[in-house]
Amino acid sequence: MSYKIPRGCQDIYGEKSYQWQSLERTIREFCYLYNYDEIRTPIFEHTNVFKRENDSSDMVNKEMYTFQLANSKTSLTIRPEGTAGVVRSFVENKMYANPDLPVKLFYMGPMARHERPQKGRLRIFNQFGVEALGNKSPFVDVETITLAFSILSTLGLQDIKVCINTLGDDASRQAYHDALKEYFKPYLPELCSDCKRRYEQNPLRILDCKVDHDQPFMKDVPVMKDYLTDEAREYFETVLNLLDRLEIPYEVDDKLVRGLDYYTHTVFEIVSMNKEMGSQATVLAGGRYDNLIPYFGGPKGMSGIGWALGMERLLIALEAEGADLGGKPDLDCYVMCLGEDVRMYAFEAMTELRAGGYRCEMDMMNRSFKAQFKAVDRAHAKMVLILGEDEMKAGQVTIKNIKTQEQKTMDRDKLLEYVDSVLWEE
Amino acid sequence: MSYKIPRGCQDIYGEKSYQWQSLERTIREFCYLYNYDEIRTPIFEHTNVFKRENDSSDMVNKEMYTFQLANSKTSLTIRPEGTAGVVRSFVENKMYANPDLPVKLFYMGPMARHERPQKGRLRIFNQFGVEALGNKSPFVDVETITLAFSILSTLGLQDIKVCINTLGDDASRQAYHDALKEYFKPYLPELCSDCKRRYEQNPLRILDCKVDHDQPFMKDVPVMKDYLTDEAREYFETVLNLLDRLEIPYEVDDKLVRGLDYYTHTVFEIVSMNKEMGSQATVLAGGRYDNLIPYFGGPKGMSGIGWALGMERLLIALEAEGADLGGKPDLDCYVMCLGEDVRMYAFEAMTELRAGGYRCEMDMMNRSFKAQFKAVDRAHAKMVLILGEDEMKAGQVTIKNIKTQEQKTMDRDKLLEYVDSVLWEE
Repeated sequence: MSYKIPRGCQDIYGEKSYQWQSLERTIREFCYLYNYDEIRTPIFEHTNVFKRENDSSDMVNKEMYTFQLANSKTSLTIRPEGTAGVVRSFVENKMYANPDLPVKLFYMGPMARHERPQKGRLRIFNQFGVEALGNKSPFVDVETITLAFSILSTLGLQDIKVCINTLGDDASRQAYHDALKEYFKPYLPELCSDCKRRYEQNPLRILDCKVDHDQPFMKDVPVMKDYLTDEAREYFETVLNLLDRLEIPYEVDDKLVRGLDYYTHTVFEIVSMNKEMGSQATVLAGGRYDNLIPYFGGPKGMSGIGWALGMERLLIALEAEGADLGGKPDLDCYVMCLGEDVRMYAFEAMTELRAGGYRCEMDMMNRSFKAQFKAVDRAHAKMVLILGEDEMKAGQVTIKNIKTQEQKTMDRDKLLEYVDSVLWEE
Repeated sequence: MSYKIPRGCQDIYGEKSYQWQSLERTIREFCYLYNYDEIRTPIFEHTNVFKRENDSSDMVNKEMYTFQLANSKTSLTIRPEGTAGVVRSFVENKMYANPDLPVKLFYMGPMARHERPQKGRLRIFNQFGVEALGNKSPFVDVETITLAFSILSTLGLQDIKVCINTLGDDASRQAYHDALKEYFKPYLPELCSDCKRRYEQNPLRILDCKVDHDQPFMKDVPVMKDYLTDEAREYFETVLNLLDRLEIPYEVDDKLVRGLDYYTHTVFEIVSMNKEMGSQATVLAGGRYDNLIPYFGGPKGMSGIGWALGMERLLIALEAEGADLGGKPDLDCYVMCLGEDVRMYAFEAMTELRAGGYRCEMDMMNRSFKAQFKAVDRAHAKMVLILGEDEMKAGQVTIKNIKTQEQKTMDRDKLLEYVDSVLWEE
């Protein structure tokens, strides 16, 4: 019988795992500076947390891992994205009562979508995202965009820009909604089957369709900006103004509507223009949501904003740019020993070095010194402890500095001090 | 409609999230010193990875989140523990071909078991564990136990000890198995219903039963050590010897069999004797497994060993000991500003300070200076930037050092330098 990883999933191990750690460290550091606290919500939620009324997105309609246990009436869904769980928690835990708003949260972890697997699109993937909840201000919008831009450029994405648009407030959306229905009415028979459904549920999402994208009637589609209320227009203008002042490169994209139904006002993506990633690859995306907090039972009129990025996709983008994410660090000391009697002596020495803060490894395979030296090379050890019967009987150790090739024999109790003197100077 | 977290799950946020980060940092640091690499396997696997033939454990028989998507024949299970996925990955990715064995891996992340929720036992919980795969040596056993012991004592568990036993090799197990069946035969009608099943599947697990624990016939049950082969006895004696030399406190517990069926040779737990945790609370548990790697299709005779701990349970144990896990760090600088015009000026100053490595926050609520000073207190800010129309027009900033109460007004472009001079001295 053979045991395989589920289709569309991947194991992360070896060098890769160090790159993930490095990526996560950088992300956490920026969240720390921007005063975002971490939140961890369960990997599954009640299905209605994700499957909201009138939601027309593919994610909700086709791609969720929804299940019901035997003998249970509860329908559960493995989270396909992070925002819904965070907003559910924000409301359930009454974080909206915090005197300082917005409450700023970040999350990082596995999500699952039952999609057709392809490069950079896995069925279990890791998402990092932030949410700033409970305060509607263009400054909050711009703070989240600044954080996103800073993280991506610090990590090494050089040729990136913000694509931004506004979907306006509810009144603007309704007006635009009506205009789109009016406009698409004569073309209804020509729309793809998904878009026929979208026409009824949320005509905005027709603009996002990859199938109908090149249809001739898509050229003269009405644009949102002609249907904005004054208030919504001013809000968006302030956001753009602030981005100008902060010198964050952006482009207003009239057709950017995003795949999720809950967005209002500012929506944005950060795209990489690196050619290896295709013409324009979206690395990160988000937007403001006026209605999601009230939907989950929070205070009326309380708004939030957030964005998310797929970590696997980000790693592909970073590799395309040749960004250095590091790898497995060199070993401080490899402990060689010959004979089972000496092994205990060696093990104690290693335990002391580890307690002293040094990354150590020893031969556990009872190999010849020659074979052990090959292991030293593979581990890129900085120092080697060489222990045989003679050293043990004399209560001594022989230690070699690989860089200088200097080799010394000394009393066992001088070992840590000596390693300190060599490795602390580095 | 109300949206609630699934039963038996918890959100981690606020101060708690900083304690989790601190805990994870310490764990990663030790894994680094002991040269364990991280591995991340999917949050669900094919069900047969966890549901193995003849497995009698409750976890596999009652507690798994197993599901099948509509239109799919594939049965998937959210991982109830970490070892099976890691061993699956070790075999599938041919890590056994590594010239240096054991391959040493650690993992950390969410697991799910459909148990009755109770204190320290959640349906979605986080597990940290290690596996050392591909090399059978008492030194490997002791290295993993040393790592476990060091992590727990460094984190602050003071009164802990290792409970240890051996289940021997396959021959020893078979002999003991037969002896137990023989012994329990007359008591079969008196055993609980679970134990009746265990009698057939794996009589060792009767020793673990909480229901039959106080039955009079449990006193004179045969003990494993009388059925060990010479080889298995010697292996265990070497392990105990090494623990003695390393001065790790342990106690041999004849009745320790562990709840999983795959263990052979060394099995162990680390227990806390802190009274607030009950008489003896198991914090960590593990053992060697001779048959699991071959079961997953790996090389015959290749053995592994590992242990795991529940992070939520560990946090409860640390709290019971009064260990200091820290909390949300103080803010470096809170940026106060009055009026929407000044806000942009303030925002730019804050962005510069963040880029300089300082954790900053500003008022986004358009509050009075008085209300903003309360926010400064809540954030435990070290410094406060106070910006009004006057400062903006003069291109200056007013900054207050909360500790010394010293307040200064200076040119805007001197700000970062000044903050450096105050906060770097700390």
